[in-house]
Amino acid sequence: MISKNKLKELASYRQQKRCDEEAVFVVEGPKMAAEAMAAGVPIRVVCATSEWNADNGMWEEYYEVSQAELERLSNMRSPNQVWMLVERQHHQPLPTTHQPLTLALDKIQDPGNMGTLMRTADWFGVRHIVCSPDTVSCYNPKVVQASMGAIFRTRVEYVDLPQWLSSCGMPVFGASLQGEPLAKHLTQNTQHSVLLIGNESRGISPEAMASVTHPVLIPNIGGTAESLNAAVAAGILMHALTK
Amino acid sequence: MISKNKLKELASYRQQKRCDEEAVFVVEGPKMAAEAMAAGVPIRVVCATSEWNADNGMWEEYYEVSQAELERLSNMRSPNQVWMLVERQHHQPLPTTHQPLTLALDKIQDPGNMGTLMRTADWFGVRHIVCSPDTVSCYNPKVVQASMGAIFRTRVEYVDLPQWLSSCGMPVFGASLQGEPLAKHLTQNTQHSVLLIGNESRGISPEAMASVTHPVLIPNIGGTAESLNAAVAAGILMHALTK
Repeated sequence: MISKNKLKELASYRQQKRCDEEAVFVVEGPKMAAEAMAAGVPIRVVCATSEWNADNGMWEEYYEVSQAELERLSNMRSPNQVWMLVERQHHQPLPTTHQPLTLALDKIQDPGNMGTLMRTADWFGVRHIVCSPDTVSCYNPKVVQASMGAIFRTRVEYVDLPQWLSSCGMPVFGASLQGEPLAKHLTQNTQHSVLLIGNESRGISPEAMASVTHPVLIPNIGGTAESLNAAVAAGILMHALTK
Repeated sequence: MISKNKLKELASYRQQKRCDEEAVFVVEGPKMAAEAMAAGVPIRVVCATSEWNADNGMWEEYYEVSQAELERLSNMRSPNQVWMLVERQHHQPLPTTHQPLTLALDKIQDPGNMGTLMRTADWFGVRHIVCSPDTVSCYNPKVVQASMGAIFRTRVEYVDLPQWLSSCGMPVFGASLQGEPLAKHLTQNTQHSVLLIGNESRGISPEAMASVTHPVLIPNIGGTAESLNAAVAAGILMHALTK
């Protein structure tokens, strides 16, 4: 059972600002809840149906909720069994030069793209993601869900991107329609590199492009489409650069 | 100006059923409207702001609408300048064996994924897409928008997929977690092949898998992510199979 006041208080975490202030984020559904538990991150509050709790043990701050109450809390269209408030982790800085590849994101706007970029990085073992400050927050609820658990296995940092790129000391591959075909670049060693992906409609900004040492083009075989989706382009390049 | 009755009538095209019955679909925003005009498809109705129309000529059935009226018609959160009702095209069957690669989709559910799959196919010159009947409609408004114009440049057919695959007479590459690494397959000729992509959570169905001649695995270098997004996986494989 949950009181009306408690429900109202927890529903306020639908506001990103509230989550940012307390350095928490919302995780929803049995699959993402299982990822949070497996990752061992501190779970502050759990609201779930009695069925979910019966299978998933006891929690210090646990509220049994109805489907209607879950809908009140949820950011999703079809909330599913469980809602969690999870604490953000403060990691030590990663030693970037020991990572096979670092992903850099310049002004990615769409939460679905951002989550898919994190998920794809996770698949290819790319653990470090640096973003311009105007890239969508990795704690946006849609990003968290689209990441399919990658939020718990990647480090996402928001930095002054042009400055970070210019001082990182690594080759920077940048997806660009003015680049050279991918195959040409793969003759050299691509270990300890950065892959830079630009905004969905404007591409890489001129300030970030200044640090791109290897502009890369994915061949446009059809010749009719204007561009690839940012996460698809990143997937093709991460696959090429990590193999 | 648009009458209340006309607005009500046109707003009924928000229902997929209505669009299916009349073999039309909705196209929104200046970018997609420009794609429809460039493609030369029959445009039945145009509703737009006066600014858009001033730049884009006259239309037989044109209604000037306000932002509020556009919102009434639109499937989008932030409708933008123009709404069009476009007729679906009845193409002749494509000679599949003359296509470099055919994309086959087994029970793709998410409209964003479907549109991105079409957009990626368009980029790689893959013009023919065959789908199981329970794949989301290519005329779903979210699919149309996510396709970024590929709806006008690809042929999407809904067929009995296991039967189509078993009688297509081409090698069938299928993305599968039980497959062999991609690099191993690329030593052979991959022209005139089919790439089969399965459902977002269940993968390729057993009935379709029976026709897969080349199960392909995209190396899971991180070892922690469960899967790749369907459109990202398809992008990596289309890039590999068309180069």
